[in-house]
Formats: sequence, structure tokens, C-alpha cells
Amino acid sequence: MEKWDGSEGTSAFHMPEWMIQFADQKQEFNKRPTKIGRRSLSRSISQSSTDSYSSAASYTDSSDDETSPRDKQQKNSKGSSDFCVKNIKQAEFGRREIEIAEQEMPALMALRKRAQGEKPLAGAKIVGCTHITAQTAVLMETLGALGAQCRWAACNIYSTLNEVAAALAESGFPVFAWKGESEDDFWWCIDRCVNVEGWQPNMILDDGGDLTHWIYKKYPNMFKKIKGIVEESVTGVHRLYQLSKAGKLCVPAMNVNDSVTKQKFDNLYCCRESILDGLKRTTDMMFGGKQVVVCGYGEVGKGCCAALKAMGSIVYVTEIDPICALQACMDGFRLVKLNEVIRQVDIVITCTGNKNVVTREHLDRMKNSCIVCNMGHSNTEIDVASLRTPELTWERVRSQVDHVIWPDGKRIVLLAEGRLLNLSCSTVPTFVLSITATTQALALIELYNAPEGRYKQDVYLLPKKMDEYVASLHLPTFDAHLTELTDEQAKYLGLNKNGPFKPNYYRY
Amino acid sequence: MEKWDGSEGTSAFHMPEWMIQFADQKQEFNKRPTKIGRRSLSRSISQSSTDSYSSAASYTDSSDDETSPRDKQQKNSKGSSDFCVKNIKQAEFGRREIEIAEQEMPALMALRKRAQGEKPLAGAKIVGCTHITAQTAVLMETLGALGAQCRWAACNIYSTLNEVAAALAESGFPVFAWKGESEDDFWWCIDRCVNVEGWQPNMILDDGGDLTHWIYKKYPNMFKKIKGIVEESVTGVHRLYQLSKAGKLCVPAMNVNDSVTKQKFDNLYCCRESILDGLKRTTDMMFGGKQVVVCGYGEVGKGCCAALKAMGSIVYVTEIDPICALQACMDGFRLVKLNEVIRQVDIVITCTGNKNVVTREHLDRMKNSCIVCNMGHSNTEIDVASLRTPELTWERVRSQVDHVIWPDGKRIVLLAEGRLLNLSCSTVPTFVLSITATTQALALIELYNAPEGRYKQDVYLLPKKMDEYVASLHLPTFDAHLTELTDEQAKYLGLNKNGPFKPNYYRY
Amino acid sequence: MEKWDGSEGTSAFHMPEWMIQFADQKQEFNKRPTKIGRRSLSRSISQSSTDSYSSAASYTDSSDDETSPRDKQQKNSKGSSDFCVKNIKQAEFGRREIEIAEQEMPALMALRKRAQGEKPLAGAKIVGCTHITAQTAVLMETLGALGAQCRWAACNIYSTLNEVAAALAESGFPVFAWKGESEDDFWWCIDRCVNVEGWQPNMILDDGGDLTHWIYKKYPNMFKKIKGIVEESVTGVHRLYQLSKAGKLCVPAMNVNDSVTKQKFDNLYCCRESILDGLKRTTDMMFGGKQVVVCGYGEVGKGCCAALKAMGSIVYVTEIDPICALQACMDGFRLVKLNEVIRQVDIVITCTGNKNVVTREHLDRMKNSCIVCNMGHSNTEIDVASLRTPELTWERVRSQVDHVIWPDGKRIVLLAEGRLLNLSCSTVPTFVLSITATTQALALIELYNAPEGRYKQDVYLLPKKMDEYVASLHLPTFDAHLTELTDEQAKYLGLNKNGPFKPNYYRY
Amino acid sequence: MEKWDGSEGTSAFHMPEWMIQFADQKQEFNKRPTKIGRRSLSRSISQSSTDSYSSAASYTDSSDDETSPRDKQQKNSKGSSDFCVKNIKQAEFGRREIEIAEQEMPALMALRKRAQGEKPLAGAKIVGCTHITAQTAVLMETLGALGAQCRWAACNIYSTLNEVAAALAESGFPVFAWKGESEDDFWWCIDRCVNVEGWQPNMILDDGGDLTHWIYKKYPNMFKKIKGIVEESVTGVHRLYQLSKAGKLCVPAMNVNDSVTKQKFDNLYCCRESILDGLKRTTDMMFGGKQVVVCGYGEVGKGCCAALKAMGSIVYVTEIDPICALQACMDGFRLVKLNEVIRQVDIVITCTGNKNVVTREHLDRMKNSCIVCNMGHSNTEIDVASLRTPELTWERVRSQVDHVIWPDGKRIVLLAEGRLLNLSCSTVPTFVLSITATTQALALIELYNAPEGRYKQDVYLLPKKMDEYVASLHLPTFDAHLTELTDEQAKYLGLNKNGPFKPNYYRY
Repeated sequence: MEKWDGSEGTSAFHMPEWMIQFADQKQEFNKRPTKIGRRSLSRSISQSSTDSYSSAASYTDSSDDETSPRDKQQKNSKGSSDFCVKNIKQAEFGRREIEIAEQEMPALMALRKRAQGEKPLAGAKIVGCTHITAQTAVLMETLGALGAQCRWAACNIYSTLNEVAAALAESGFPVFAWKGESEDDFWWCIDRCVNVEGWQPNMILDDGGDLTHWIYKKYPNMFKKIKGIVEESVTGVHRLYQLSKAGKLCVPAMNVNDSVTKQKFDNLYCCRESILDGLKRTTDMMFGGKQVVVCGYGEVGKGCCAALKAMGSIVYVTEIDPICALQACMDGFRLVKLNEVIRQVDIVITCTGNKNVVTREHLDRMKNSCIVCNMGHSNTEIDVASLRTPELTWERVRSQVDHVIWPDGKRIVLLAEGRLLNLSCSTVPTFVLSITATTQALALIELYNAPEGRYKQDVYLLPKKMDEYVASLHLPTFDAHLTELTDEQAKYLGLNKNGPFKPNYYRY
Repeated sequence: MEKWDGSEGTSAFHMPEWMIQFADQKQEFNKRPTKIGRRSLSRSISQSSTDSYSSAASYTDSSDDETSPRDKQQKNSKGSSDFCVKNIKQAEFGRREIEIAEQEMPALMALRKRAQGEKPLAGAKIVGCTHITAQTAVLMETLGALGAQCRWAACNIYSTLNEVAAALAESGFPVFAWKGESEDDFWWCIDRCVNVEGWQPNMILDDGGDLTHWIYKKYPNMFKKIKGIVEESVTGVHRLYQLSKAGKLCVPAMNVNDSVTKQKFDNLYCCRESILDGLKRTTDMMFGGKQVVVCGYGEVGKGCCAALKAMGSIVYVTEIDPICALQACMDGFRLVKLNEVIRQVDIVITCTGNKNVVTREHLDRMKNSCIVCNMGHSNTEIDVASLRTPELTWERVRSQVDHVIWPDGKRIVLLAEGRLLNLSCSTVPTFVLSITATTQALALIELYNAPEGRYKQDVYLLPKKMDEYVASLHLPTFDAHLTELTDEQAKYLGLNKNGPFKPNYYRY
Repeated sequence: MEKWDGSEGTSAFHMPEWMIQFADQKQEFNKRPTKIGRRSLSRSISQSSTDSYSSAASYTDSSDDETSPRDKQQKNSKGSSDFCVKNIKQAEFGRREIEIAEQEMPALMALRKRAQGEKPLAGAKIVGCTHITAQTAVLMETLGALGAQCRWAACNIYSTLNEVAAALAESGFPVFAWKGESEDDFWWCIDRCVNVEGWQPNMILDDGGDLTHWIYKKYPNMFKKIKGIVEESVTGVHRLYQLSKAGKLCVPAMNVNDSVTKQKFDNLYCCRESILDGLKRTTDMMFGGKQVVVCGYGEVGKGCCAALKAMGSIVYVTEIDPICALQACMDGFRLVKLNEVIRQVDIVITCTGNKNVVTREHLDRMKNSCIVCNMGHSNTEIDVASLRTPELTWERVRSQVDHVIWPDGKRIVLLAEGRLLNLSCSTVPTFVLSITATTQALALIELYNAPEGRYKQDVYLLPKKMDEYVASLHLPTFDAHLTELTDEQAKYLGLNKNGPFKPNYYRY
Repeated sequence: MEKWDGSEGTSAFHMPEWMIQFADQKQEFNKRPTKIGRRSLSRSISQSSTDSYSSAASYTDSSDDETSPRDKQQKNSKGSSDFCVKNIKQAEFGRREIEIAEQEMPALMALRKRAQGEKPLAGAKIVGCTHITAQTAVLMETLGALGAQCRWAACNIYSTLNEVAAALAESGFPVFAWKGESEDDFWWCIDRCVNVEGWQPNMILDDGGDLTHWIYKKYPNMFKKIKGIVEESVTGVHRLYQLSKAGKLCVPAMNVNDSVTKQKFDNLYCCRESILDGLKRTTDMMFGGKQVVVCGYGEVGKGCCAALKAMGSIVYVTEIDPICALQACMDGFRLVKLNEVIRQVDIVITCTGNKNVVTREHLDRMKNSCIVCNMGHSNTEIDVASLRTPELTWERVRSQVDHVIWPDGKRIVLLAEGRLLNLSCSTVPTFVLSITATTQALALIELYNAPEGRYKQDVYLLPKKMDEYVASLHLPTFDAHLTELTDEQAKYLGLNKNGPFKPNYYRY
């Protein structure tokens, strides 16, 4: 099993500054839960949570009901009131959404089918904190079918689909979440999941690390019974890594963010489509003939470049890493410094995970009508703050589209205020969410069933065999037929017929 | 530094059967150097050596001089006779070839320039065993410029360019190689490199492992002074791995075969071009509209598929690994079992590294005029042996092209008798050879200069930073301009401004 | 000048049935203007008009003002009341929209600049009937700048942007149009443009042929002074052709629909983008790995196939024309009959211009969740009517998205009820509208300035030289630099240095 | 039937200068058959003939037999001596080549099968003058099977395959051709085809116009019985056009050069492959990352650009025609003037049909190692003559590859001395030759069987229906299944179910 502990050799992953800042902020909050502290935390919550955010809009009209769910008395049809959602009566609509999602998540449905005989999660008590959407519901009900008991809160104060939460509550899941929670609500909901009489979790499924954080702070003793943590987000993984580094991680944790399938699909394949979608929905522009500079040629940048090239754009690439730079060359892109092309391009796209990649100086030199957007990890890639100066006029022309106007009349078109275009202005396909959810389910099964000693108090990548299993569960969607090794071939290659098929360092 | 020792966890790289067989064969040879033994070794030599074989043809007419070089008395213009080549008089022609190659290997030339001040290989005594071509000559002369003394033999009995060997001998390199060596010559040449009075190597540069093997067998004490081995080929790397596994590796070894730049360029980018070239030169076929099945969707398969799709072929893929299979789906290829399409395809291409991927049964079912070829690692992917039966007629229609004719008149077109199409029927671009040679040079520098204790008696991958350096040396070829991190950005990312820029598990 | 009169030889373009039906319907209407008659005309109006429809939504909130514009008294700031729009007070907002559009229509702006010296339309009195959008406004104001007087009505009862109409009225253009006209309003508006005391049009710019039709019926004498008709739509062009065929066309007409630039851009390049956009906005699906069948491999089909292939879909093509079929083969698509793949595909796209290409039988055999949509000319390609049967349930899941549910639970996803996906569910880029508008302007200039006898009472294609001029006006958008022939080269090729550069039969 | 008579309107095709020069030269020759005259004619012959040249190498070793075939007495096995070939004994080898070609020309074989009942060419006496290759032999024997009598000469003094000529002679075809004819031989052979006692041709199949020319000069009365000319080459078509223009064309002629299938396949699809093939075979270069400028974006340029883009090159385009220029933009290529990029590009490719597109000034400014080649119509696109100056050194480094060396050591790599790369350095796929040959056969059938009056003394394009038929005969090669219109659909579209399916101006 490959360990990601950064302890080996010179290229170990150092804790980057933004992570340290984040950690500091967090500690601030715990010391002084003032209004300001809360707000800064609120930002960090939403920032971390958007790592795996899916476009989420309430399906039904928001009722004008302004009563806080915490103040309501609600029961589901079986008489239970162990939940807190916006409106239990929306359950039926939510159920239909879940049913539609089930059709598009065949891998989880296949897991359910296999679970009819054995219950690999029998006895598992899972506390979860994720976005609450129809896809999450399919995951939760799959975990239930596999034998687990679940309690759930939202990892983001805006992303909950109330109808889906209602449907889950109606079918007996203790869900504590609604769209538009306050920060106090946010932590209250998490607490209601964890702090239950006569029920103690033995597994954690987290997205962003807030749930894990809460248990660390409030109920550290719970970890005695907890068999493991499964974490989904970049931010949450980094927090676990900090804990591990500091020697404070007291259970095994599984980093599902860096599994092959998730990385390649979330980044390369998904962004290949969402860059086009995000640009079209916001600007209705034509791609053909446009000059575009893509900053960063990692998986996300590769996806963006491939898509735009295919649509007839002329694409330039900037890179700091010479290996990725050489890949860009071989893939047919001119490798430039941003300064060289900034005056001529029609679109600037950042995909670096870095900060201040597009500076005010760059923005000053762009031509009129240049579109600027961000597909990278954080919202710091474009120095949007530098545009908040008196001489520039901001004009909101559509949702997620601002014109920033220079004194001489030049406009640049800023999308999503520099936040992630793919999350803000396009949707994440169910197929990608399915891969993620399946990976989460398998990680829970692995950690829950692993024999004593297989995992220590450290952060692990999903075993390659399970990554392969996730992939195999999604092949039927494409009517794809896998070839099996013959015994003779397996012997020749020195492989088990059922995998894993590649050494850990294999790059795909 | 990432170690490739396979010792961690379940997915460790087991010694595959073909490697064991190879090892056995080798031992056979050492016991009974009979004619038959020799022949089987000869095959294994050429098999292993073709790992990094480049198309090599003698530039000038073969003289009819049948005298063995071993029986000739030759001196270069400085009076030295410490070499053995076909004809020292061909030196001038060879020099011109080397000069042309220099123009296409700017990275090595850049290394030479940097070496004008410091000599990182001062004191190094390198014994080498590689193909002897103009590109190798540029490498050797670069090593010389960096301060090293070199002695060299050929790793393949056919691939030596006599003119280049002459030019090297003329300029003072003790080279022992000619085209068309016998097996006895082969080992004699190696021995002449190693077994010198008053000179003992302290570095080994090997391609295929034969040189290393020879020293192990004959001069094991030499390893006391040897600081490291740099190995280029898949086969040689496997042999080192065996030694390491068996606890017999007594110096550090650098596996340059699995460096990122080599892998991506040798496989993905190079095969993307050579599949088209190999098919055209042998068959003059048109790609547009053709149905093709590509067996295996690793880097080689990805390159082949991309190229053929771009040329208007309809491409099917077979895979055993569900992750690669899912990649094939997302890249737009129907994933099938070979049986499903074998009757309809116009071309079958193997890229698996496996054996008997195309069986006689498949061959029997192919349609008339179907083209069959291999782009994978070994020549076992197509079961060519099964075609050597009396009812089938073989007709050699061109160099490297056989028609195999069934009793009913059906013909299949077999290329290069199932050996590697890209090595047999197309050429390896100098650019790829340049990357490899630069990597070798840097690996030698690293091992030679590493402080005590950095490397143990094990097999190592090239440090990522050096991989990045190799890449950066090749960027000027493309007039590519790398961006540099600002101090602020480097701090934010927790990276050194000069790299390495990625964690070791990064997949590119 | 190439004539498109269909009079030569066997492949002349016969009047297709749907055109005859349309003509009949029209005559019906003129005989019996009953309610039913009106409604059927209404459909035909909108059908014909959607030929060049661009997504049009009112920018500002619809006021609740239910008063018909015809009943209102409005004056612009200069005191004129020679217009009829929804609300003259919306002019300022409309002006801003026009200004934004101006930035994206550089070719028209360039024409204005050239017109500062000469006024090629001085004396022209143009009556127009087109969609009234910001882009049209840029065209109208350009015609004005070139010297023309204009009066304008809408060619579609829904597509008028009230704010833009208001802005035009405010700046002195007699515009008669609002969103949501009744049919009576529709013809009233047209009549107000034409039937003016002391002003008689001498040029017609039509989109769909309704304006031309009205003048033929009501004011045939006007044609004595009319120098020509410029017609934009497929339908309008066919109506002109009928007139010509019947010997009733009494002025020259210019078919701008079939100009090269319009055809290639509206179809190939525009659909290459809009197929992706339309599918994403309606279904959020992922393209990678999906199996798609595209019916028809004309320009539209070519665009759809290229885009989906680039996004990783597996694309099958159906065709009736063997030449286009062979192109599909060479471009790498399996050419099939629809029946062969209908059970396995995820998406069915029609691009044929034909009717009943997808029949109920096909629909019955599609797999669950199959998406069906139309990118072709008319809304008859998918036999949607056949789905209006009692055993099937329709469920509207989003705007423009219906689930049609079979008794066994199978759902197909029908987009835009079989109408044009690109017009219904995506937007037409301004760049394409710019090409069309520029072509219209040049066609007007050509017809208005043509010397006596250059054009007879027939339907003409735009002279190739003007097509080339339209293209050249759009090159600066891409910072594209055209090469000029030297005198010597022009002589060698037998060409004028300023074009036309190709024989008429050139295919591009 | 579309006529290509250039008589309509402003864009008529003027006789270009090079054609006039050619005509003059020709007349010179006829007046003064001196040595010099002959040589200049010889050049013009080979220039015109290369229009449709296919790579032709003699399969067997050239015998050292220096006797001119004209001086030999040969008989085939049936005793006939009505032929003149190199060596009748090579017939068997040639027969095998013909049989192999038959397998790749299924369309002609299908025509033969259909001809078993009716003989559409019964009574036809065809005199032909084309390249004599295995593919031509399949065509000739097909014409024979369709009922025709044939006599044949070569249209090029170098391209005849002696073995194939022998096989044809053996099976009874009066063939007069060998590799390495003198000019006198060339005309003698043509004369032997035409000037026969008791046999007079009634159809001409020409490639380059030399045969037609000869009959005009020597036997003008023969045209009384000739029903038509089928001409294949650009040059020959132009010569026919001149005759028509001058009122001297006395029989109908069919221009098969401009048929859709030939144009798209010979140019777009074939060049898409041959540009890669030609560059690889000559230079072994890697395409990835290379900067390339392609001069001209017609069908050939489009093919070259698409291929190189797909292989990872960065491609710039130059154009004189704004429409093609805009296409280049929309396809994702930077449109530049050659001067802008000449210093930076690695490869220059001309595809214009123009002259002096690459001048000495450009060549002077190219960077070291720049590759220069021509894919266009004539060999004048690169001003190669300007490189024949004393200060430049030419070095032939391989067949078809010259290094031209500047005084400062800069080298440019000139391929095929500026002649057509695709004809000189790659091969024409049989598939393309099959399309051409089928088109020729159908054109002969059409002209021979056309009712009185269908064709006048003019130059015609192949009827679209026949173009479609040629395409349909090639679909089975790709296992492509054409859809048939229903009666209802045909009526709706106003089309005959069997085609033609498109108006004449359709661009494909």
C-alpha cells in the first residue's frame, strides 16, 4: 500500500503557506468565536467546501417560510423526529430526484445488489458531513443497504437540497441540514450528528474536514472507537496531513481525493467539458479562431487546452514545471510567458493552484473585451482584489459575469469573480459524482473491514486494487468489455489475474 | 528520493516469468557455451538490446574486407591503437555524422558549455555498453568534456555504425565495436573495455545489462571502486531488480528507463508518430476509414490510438486494466474484447507487453488483407510461431512484410515478423534519443557526485529534479519560455523556486 | 455572376413537397382569414422565421402594462411619433445593448467608417422585416450611416427585443414591432412600414418572405420603383424561387442564405459549438465515452460529429448520399443504418432536413435514458407526433426537456420537442450574426448600385467577390493577416489581385 | 449537367500565364524538333504528367539489356506481336502485381461483375495514354470486360512498370510503353496506338493531353468517329479548355479531374496522410512541438494542416483568399504573412499552385535546419532556381534530400528539389487510384452511351449522379451501410430516390 506521508526524501510535500494560514484562522476561531471570527471561518468553510461542490439549486420554489428548521417540530411518516430539515413535506419531490440519480449511478446500485448476501458494513456507524444532494442520497442509501447506520450533516451552508434532505429524513435517515444555514446552525447540525445518546460513530466520512475537526475538539474520546476517516477534499486531506505530521492523527485516514479515477476524471476529463460549458453559459462566445492563454498544464490545464484546441481556438500555455512544459510543446501548444501574449489574447484561463498568476499589471495590459476566468484550485489565481480600486467601474452584466471598465473605456469580462468557473458556471456531471461516491463507499468498506494492523495512524491512498474496482464498476455504463488475462499470461507478467495490474508509480 | 524496490505492500512488482526464463537461459550459456547455447543467447542479446534500438544502417558501402577487426593492426592519427573498429579510415565520414547529430542534441551541447568551468565528471572512469551511433558519440564526447574517461563496447552485435566507431577511435576514445560481431566478439569487446591494465572503471553505463553481468561474473572485485550503474533498458533494469531482490546488488543503480521524460517521450509521443510511419513505410496503406483494434491502452497504446483516430481510422481498444479501460472510453474508443471485432478490422496492433495476445485462433478469423503488427515491449504478443505450420504459405513481399496465406487464399499481412514495428520499420527521432542521452549523462553525474549515504545498494529512479532539468534543457528546441515562480508564489505553494515542482506520485 | 435558377439539366432543384404545402397554406389564409386559418399561418410564420432565429429574451422585466402598443400615444425625445414600440422609455437600456453589440460587429463598424466619405446607399429607401435585436440595430444604423432611410417591422411575433426597438425609435428609426404581437398586429406593423404617405421603398430586406409577400398582394405597383430584394432565410429564398419559376418575380433578388461565408459559418462552425452547448444546457450530460448517432453528414452533421468526437464520444453516422457517406468514412466515423445502432446509442441527433428520420419504431427501440434531439432544418426530422399517444407519459423535467415514458418505465429524453436544438437551447454567437448582417448590407449596396442590366428579374447568389469581401472584413477580429498576390503571381494565375480568387464551382 | 465553360460573368477562369507558356513551348517543338526543343518539351511532359503520378519503381531488377524495345522482335504466347514492351517474359511477375492490385480496387471489380450481362462498352475502341501501372492494368482489363477494345501508350517516359506492360501484352492488349523511353520513343508509342490499319479509335482516355494533342496534329480526321475524350490531369483539362475557348474542340470532353470524389480524396484526405509520410521518409523528424507554416489553405493545405496539428505541431497558415483565410482561423490556425514567421518556423510547406511563394529572400531568413518542401500543384512554388548561386553549397544527403548551405554554415533542408513531396517521397494509396480509375471508366461509359445531343463540343464535369455512383462503389471497402430514402421522404425532399442528392453548387 502506497503511503502518502511525505516523509521520504527531498521532494516531500511541504506544508504550503495557505494551509498554514488556514490552520491559524481555525485556531483563531476556536479561541474567539466572535462575529468576525465567525465570518472569517465562514469563508474558510465555503472555500474548503467548494472543493467538491456540485451545482446545486433547490428544485422547488423556496417557500417564504422564514422559521428556522431548528425551531420547527417535524415528524416523518413513521413518527420519528430524529432529523432537522427545512420541510419534511418536500420528501416526495426529493424522492423522485433520488430515483433519477439512481439511474445514473449504476456503480452504487451494483454495490447494493452485491450486498444482498453479505453486509460488509454491518455494524458500521457512519457519521457523514458532505454536500447533501440527490447523488449523496444514493450514496447514503447504499451505505445503509450495505449494513451501516448513518447520521449526516451538510459540509456547506448553501449547497443542501432541501427536498432531498426531506426524502432522506422521511425514509429514516437522521439528517441535519438545510439550505442557508447560519454558521451557528452549521456546527449545531454537526453536533446533532455526533452527540447522540446511545449511539457512537465508528466511521467518519468527511468533505472538507469540519466534522473531523469538531470531533477532535469536542469529543476526542470518540476516536477510541473510530476505525477510520475517509476524506474527500483537497483541504480536508491537507488538514489530515497536518495532524499526521504533528503526530496527532489517532486513526487511519483514507485520502480518496488523490485516487487515480477521481483525479483523472474530476480534472482531465471533466474540465475538458466544463471549460467549454462554463464559457458558453456565461458569454455565448464563439471558440473558433479565438486566442486563448491557459496558465498551467496540469490535468486541468490539459483538459482545457484539448477542448479549446478541438473547437478551433489558438491556445498558448504558461508553465513553471519544465516537464509539463515539454508535454505542452509535444501536444502542440506554444509555451510562453504570460507577458508575451497578454496583449493579444481573447481569453485568459488560470489552472495553476497558485496565487496571483494574473496580476493587476496583466489585467491592465489586456485588450478590450478580454475574458478572464479561473479553473484552478483556489480563487486566488487571478488577483481580483487588485481590481477593486476607485478608477475601475464594475458592471454586473449577468449572473457570474462582471465587466470591469477602465477609465479609457476598456472592458475586461471577469467570470465568477475569479472563483472556479467549472463549479460556479457549469455543472458537474453525475458520472463524475458517481465515481467519487463509489470511491468513498469502497474506502469505508476497506477501512471498516481491514484486519488489525493493515492501517496505522496515518493517511493512506486507496489501494490500487480498489481504484481498479471503482473503474470496473463504471465500465458497463459504456458497454465496455474488459479482457481477462489467461492463467498463462498472468504468470508471464507476474500478475494476479484480478489485479492490481500496475506498479504504484504507474502514471496512466 | 523514490525507491523502486517493490518491497512495499501487495502491489509489489513480482518477477515475471519471462525474466526468470531469461535469467535461466543466461546461466545455461555460462555453463555450456555450445553452438546451440550461443544461438539462444544471441537471441536474448538482441531481444534485450532492441529495447532501446535505433534504426541503424551503415552509411557507407560495406567494404568487402572480410578480415575480422580483431585480426587487424590499426592506429589512429595520434598513434594510439587502443581500440578495435572496422576501419579507422572511415573516421572522417563518421565525424560528419556526429556533427550533424550535435545540431539536433542541443541539451548535451548545453551541458558541455556549462562544463567549461567545472568538470562534474573529473576523475570519472566510465565503461559503457550501448548502441554505437552518432547520437551515442555525442553523449560520449559530452562525458569527455565533463571530465570523464570512457571506454566503450556495443550492446548489440548489429547496430554499430562503423564510421562513427572509427571517428570516436580517431579522436581518442577506446572503442571496441563493429557491425556484425560474432558472440565471441561481443564478449571479447566488452572484456577489452574492462580488463585494462592500470585503468579501472568507477562508473558503468549499461543498456541491456550485459556489461554489468560480465563484470559480476568475471571481475566482481571491481565493484569495490564502482560508484554506480546507470541502466537504460527495461531488461537491464529488471536484471538489476533481480540482483537487488537477491541481495546481490553491491552498488547503487539508477533506473533511467522509468524517468518521466523518457517514458512519456519514448512511448506516448514517439509512438504517436512511429505507428503511422511504420505502417506507411511497410504497406503504403491509407488510414482514413480503416477499422483498427489496438490491444493495450498504456502509453504506447494511447499514442497509437490518438494518431490513428486523428488520421480518420475507427479505433477499437482492448484492455485488461479497468482504469486504462475507462480512460479509453473517455478518450472516445469502444472498449471490446478482441474476439468481438477480429472479423471486421483492417489492422491489429498489439501494445501490451504481454504474450499471446493475438493467437492463432484470432489469426484464423481475421479477414483477408488484415494487417497485424506489434508496438509493444516484446515479440511475443503475436503468436507468430503458431503461423509456422505446413498449411500456411509465407510470402515475403517486401523487407519486413510477409503475406501469410491460408489454404483458401486468405492473406494476412504480418509486419516485422511480430517484432517491434517502431524499431524495425521506422526510425527513432533524434529528439527522443537526445532526451535519453541527457538523462544518462545526468544520472552519471548524480551518482558520481552524490554524498556518501545518499544512495545505498539499491535501484533508484532519477531524482525528480533531474528529470525536470532534462526537460528544461530541451525546451529551447521549441523556443519555449518557462515561467518562474515569484518568491511569494513559491512560499505560498511551499515549493523551492527551482523545483522539484511535484510530489513523487504525480502522474503528469 | 453565378445564377441559381435551377433551370439547367437534370439535377435542378425541384420544389419540395413541404414548400408546396406551405404555399398552399398561405393561399388558404388569404382566402379565409378565419381563426383557424390564422393559427396555421402563425405556425408557418414562426417556422419560417426560426431559420435565422437567435435566442432572444427581453432584457428588462416585462412590465405588467397590458395596453397594446397600437393603442398607445408615444413620442420620442425629438417629438416624432412615427413608430410603434412597447415602451419608448426603455430606449436607454436598449442603447447600451446596441453599444455592446457594436463592439462585436467590427465589420459593420468598418463599413460605417468607409462610408464617411461616400454614401453608397444615398437615396436608398429600405423597408426591412427581420428579427429585431441589438445586432439588427447595428445593421440598421449602419445602413443609415451609409445614406439609407429605413422603416422596419419584425419577422417574428416573439423575437423582438422591446428595449432595442425603443432605442431605435428614439434615435429616429420608424420601427413597428414588439414582443408578443398578434397576427393581426404582425401584418399591421408590416403595413405601417410600407404604406406611408410620401415615402416609397426602393429596396426590400426580408427574412422569411412575409414582407415581400405583403407587397406582392397589397401594393404590387410598388415594385416599379424597387431595385431589388435581399432575402435571408431558406424559406424566403424558396418563395422567391417559386415566384421566379412562375415568372412572377418582377425585380432582382439576392439569395444571401447560400453565400459561402454564411453557409460554412452558420452550419459547420456554428453547429460544431452549439451541439455541445445545447446538450449541456439541457442535460448536463458528460460527452466522454457516450455513443452517439448523427443522422446526416452535411455541414451541420460534420460540425456535430467533429465536436462530439473531440469530446470523446463514439460517433456513428447515417447518410443517404454516398459522397457524404464516403467523407464520413474518411473522417473516421462508422457509417451505419439507424436500425443497426439504435438499441445501443446514448444520443440520437438528426441533421438531415428530411422528415421522419427518427420514427416511432426507432423510438420504441431506444434504450432507457437515450437523448433525442434535432439540429437539422425543420422540426419534422423526429416523428414527435408519433409520441403523442395515450400509452406514453410526457414529463416536462426542465425547460425544453421532456421525458417520454414508456409503459415499462423506459424514458427517452426529448429536447426542444424536436425543434432545432441550436436555436432553442443555445445561442447564436454574435460573430455569426455579424457575418450575416454584413452580407445583407453588401447585398443591398450591390443591388442598389448595380448598373442597369447586371441583374434581371431572377434570384442571384452574392457575387463571389462580395463573399470574399465579407470574409475579409472579419479577419481583423482574429488579428489575421492576409497575403497579397504580387503582380507577377496574379499574372501567372490569371487572377485579379483583388479577387475573386476561385472559380464558381470551388467547394471550399 | 454543370458546364465548366467559364463563359459566365466576371469570375470566369482566365487562361493563366503558365498555360500560355506551355502552349507556346509546344508549338515551338512542333516547328523545330531540335535538341533543345526536345529537352524543354521533355520537361513539360514530365511536369504535366506528374499531375497524376504514382510512385513507380520497377519491381524486378533492371536487366542490363540495352537493346531498345523498338528493335526487338517479341511475341506473346498467343503469337501476337502487336505491342512493344521491354520484355514479354516478365509477364508472369506483372500478372501477380495486377492480381494484388485487383484486391484493392473492388469498385472496378464490381463493375466487371455487373458487365457480365450487358457490355456497356461493346463496340468501343479506346485509345489510352496514362501511367502504366498495376492499377492502370486493372482499369484496362475492366474496360475490356465491359466490351471495349483498347490500345495503350504511356503518358510519362519514366513511370511505366515494365512487368505490368508485359503482362498486359501477354494477355492481348496492344501496349506500347517501357520505362526510360526517349522523347522520340514517346511519340512513336503514341503513334503506334493510333495509327493502325483497320482500327480507328472512337474514345480517348488521356492523362496530360499529349495523346489528344497528337491526334489533333496528325490525324484530325479521326475526330469524326470519336465520341469523346476523358481527361484526368489538371494540365490536360486546361489544354482542352483552351481548345474549347478557341472553338477548336470538336468532340465532347469529360473533365474527371474536378469531380468531387477525386478532388476531396486526392487532395484533402490523401494529403492529410502523405504530408506526414513524405516528411518522415525523408527526414525522420519528430512532428511534436515543431513550428510549421503552411502556405495556402485549399484542400491540400487543409489536409496538411489537419495532420500536423493532430501530430502536435504548431501550424501557421498564409492565404490570399479571405474566405479560405477565415476557414483557417475557425479551424484554429494563426493566419500570418510568411515574413512574420519565417525566422521561427521549423518547416515551410507550400500548397498554393502559385509561383515564387517562397522566395530567395525568405530562404535567406530561415533558421538553421529549416525544412522546405512543396505539396502544391507545380514545382514553381519554391524559387529553387534562386538557390543555384555560387555562394551556396548543395549537399545531397539522401535521395530527395538536399542540404543547401549558406556561407555562415546555415543549412536548409530542401526536399525533392521543390517538386511535389507527395509524389516524390511518398506513395499514392491504391484507394485513391481506385477512385480515379473508376471515375475514368464511368466517364467513358457515359460519353460512349450518351444519346445524341446530350453532350456538345465542350468540356463537361462528370454528372453528379456518376460521382455519387463512384462513391457508392467504394463504400463496401469500409463496410459502410448507406441509408435509402423512403418514397415519402424522397417526395418530401423533391428528390429521386437514386440521386442525385444535391444541387450542383453543393460544396460538400
